[in-house]
Amino acid sequence: MRVIVLGGDGYLGWPTAMHFAAKGHEVWAVDNYLRRRIAQETSSEALFPTPNLAERAEIFEAASGKRIHVVIGDCTDYRMMSTLFRDVAPEVVVHYAEQPSGPYSMMGYDQARRTLDNNLGATFNVIWAAMEHAPDCHIVKLGTMGEYGTPNIDIEEGWLDIEHNGRKDRVLFPRAAGTLYHTTKVLDTDMLWFYVRTHGLRVTDLMQGPVYGLATDEAAADERLAPNFHYDDIFGTVVNRFLVQAVAGVPLTVYGKGGQTRGYLNLKDTLQCVNLAMENPIPAGELRILNQFTEAFSVNEIAASIERVGRANGLDVKINNIPNPRKEREEHYYNPKHSGLIELGLKPHPMTDEVIAEMLGAVKRHANRIDARKIMPRVAWSAA
Amino acid sequence: MRVIVLGGDGYLGWPTAMHFAAKGHEVWAVDNYLRRRIAQETSSEALFPTPNLAERAEIFEAASGKRIHVVIGDCTDYRMMSTLFRDVAPEVVVHYAEQPSGPYSMMGYDQARRTLDNNLGATFNVIWAAMEHAPDCHIVKLGTMGEYGTPNIDIEEGWLDIEHNGRKDRVLFPRAAGTLYHTTKVLDTDMLWFYVRTHGLRVTDLMQGPVYGLATDEAAADERLAPNFHYDDIFGTVVNRFLVQAVAGVPLTVYGKGGQTRGYLNLKDTLQCVNLAMENPIPAGELRILNQFTEAFSVNEIAASIERVGRANGLDVKINNIPNPRKEREEHYYNPKHSGLIELGLKPHPMTDEVIAEMLGAVKRHANRIDARKIMPRVAWSAA
Repeated sequence: MRVIVLGGDGYLGWPTAMHFAAKGHEVWAVDNYLRRRIAQETSSEALFPTPNLAERAEIFEAASGKRIHVVIGDCTDYRMMSTLFRDVAPEVVVHYAEQPSGPYSMMGYDQARRTLDNNLGATFNVIWAAMEHAPDCHIVKLGTMGEYGTPNIDIEEGWLDIEHNGRKDRVLFPRAAGTLYHTTKVLDTDMLWFYVRTHGLRVTDLMQGPVYGLATDEAAADERLAPNFHYDDIFGTVVNRFLVQAVAGVPLTVYGKGGQTRGYLNLKDTLQCVNLAMENPIPAGELRILNQFTEAFSVNEIAASIERVGRANGLDVKINNIPNPRKEREEHYYNPKHSGLIELGLKPHPMTDEVIAEMLGAVKRHANRIDARKIMPRVAWSAA
Repeated sequence: MRVIVLGGDGYLGWPTAMHFAAKGHEVWAVDNYLRRRIAQETSSEALFPTPNLAERAEIFEAASGKRIHVVIGDCTDYRMMSTLFRDVAPEVVVHYAEQPSGPYSMMGYDQARRTLDNNLGATFNVIWAAMEHAPDCHIVKLGTMGEYGTPNIDIEEGWLDIEHNGRKDRVLFPRAAGTLYHTTKVLDTDMLWFYVRTHGLRVTDLMQGPVYGLATDEAAADERLAPNFHYDDIFGTVVNRFLVQAVAGVPLTVYGKGGQTRGYLNLKDTLQCVNLAMENPIPAGELRILNQFTEAFSVNEIAASIERVGRANGLDVKINNIPNPRKEREEHYYNPKHSGLIELGLKPHPMTDEVIAEMLGAVKRHANRIDARKIMPRVAWSAA
């Protein structure tokens, strides 16, 4: 299939581009390096440097014989997007092209505005470029489990059947996110759902939990193909942050009580999920929402696992409950459904002790690069 | 009180600015004339010309002795907004500064993008200017009943208590709007609710139905103070369109079956409602949502009323069911609650035969200005 991966230089985008190319699809990876710029601006560079996207594609081609087309461009620029969709006539578009950091979106006006403008502008352009040049293409959009927040009821997969005063309806599951970044994904879903029902788009919205991991099958061919691994408070997801803290001998920074529970998944499972969404298309006029994670853990549980495995591997791991810089419930009900992707064939890679040990080993090989200044929270959810 | 009216040149904004000034408040009316530009670009000019905002304020001051401060500026420009909020230190901000036409937002990419960028950009700047310079101010935001769409259940005022699998929660009422314009107001509400709960803003979101009418008490002092009265398919609400069609001898254009039911209100009641919201402030961290309309009618009922009153007043009124250019349910359940504003003291002006006759008389005085080319729908909800 002809597949466009928007945000193809990202933590998920680059592994996805390789994965699809390895499977024999024709892949276009599009990126404007926004994440790299923000990482530099906020001193949140990844643990090890990665080649630029064109170089990555060259290295991948040398290793695999498979080609990835690289397009450096801004998805909020409609001229670029319109031309791309016209020329490529994609069958599938995987849309990762968003500013992905919650803390960044909470830093101040400029960062919040950039997040809003980039994320909604990119999604809006995906919608219109598809309507104008590839109306039958399947848009696979990365949403986030964070859209739902932590409601007091079971979280269904996107839709909720409600009965009210004796009458029934089926509605988008209520959402209340914890950062402006996560809120932009709520707005994305609202906007996609509008154009799906009025213009007959076909969209899969993957509500993904925090992803962890440094390894994918395709990246194993050459260490320069590794994903961008962030461990800072801006871009680092909590598991990746804890892995680096464990290796660096810095106490794991649990925010507040640590009862915050989320659904997590291995980077390898993100690839499986996006692939399953692509291989199982949907009819025009349908918005399919799938909750994309494999296991739910509290922050305390993750910290305890990494502490246990780290100590078994000779690391002096400690846990430090620090004041929570965020505004979030630290103890809450959490029961999100996630059967849709399993039914499509997902075979989860659980977070076993072996997996944690392997990730700790991978981080250790870059231990000399760890910058402890990136570890403590630098952004608080306070008033302006 | 010190009140900023954003969108102060609009159909609702200008009457609101006069109404508040007449009540003794200190009023700043802010506008960038976007609606005037779009009206010109789409050949959708109002029935009669209105002076510019500075001239309106001069005429009003001459007639009433009350001053309205005029600011010509773009609410998506944060430099302007930030300076304004810092200098004025408003106690109340009434936010009407949005591209308000559903059909315009459905014309094509450029119009949709302009609607998205203007409406979200303005709301985002209201939020941030308030957080930075007037964190205690009460933001009175004009939403729309159109955010809810036409669900199969009773529509509550903004919030819904749900029980699911034996557990309970209170959530934003589900919303599914019929145009991109109405969808931007869904996004506005989501964004406001996010900043209300994380940063303690105080916001009243008024979910308003279509407004009709040409008269307010303050506008009676001088005919040049009249509201901008649109009767075209882009900016004209259905009642105002039908009034002009009745006077022009053009059959009333009922879209499709005409069973589309909405909650309507008189322009005079918009002023009452916004005033009641202002006079009844709310605590920090609260998003109050009020459904702002006084009576629900189907399009057929409105057409029949105007036909009846028109004929009684010597007009040859006919009704024409034309193909529906929109994508909407033409027969549906509709039971929206609207007790909140009544409880605050709203005294509705119902759409009596006398009110209709008075409006027809007012339109008749401008009958020679009616441009029949503006009457038929020029925009369809079709794919790009």
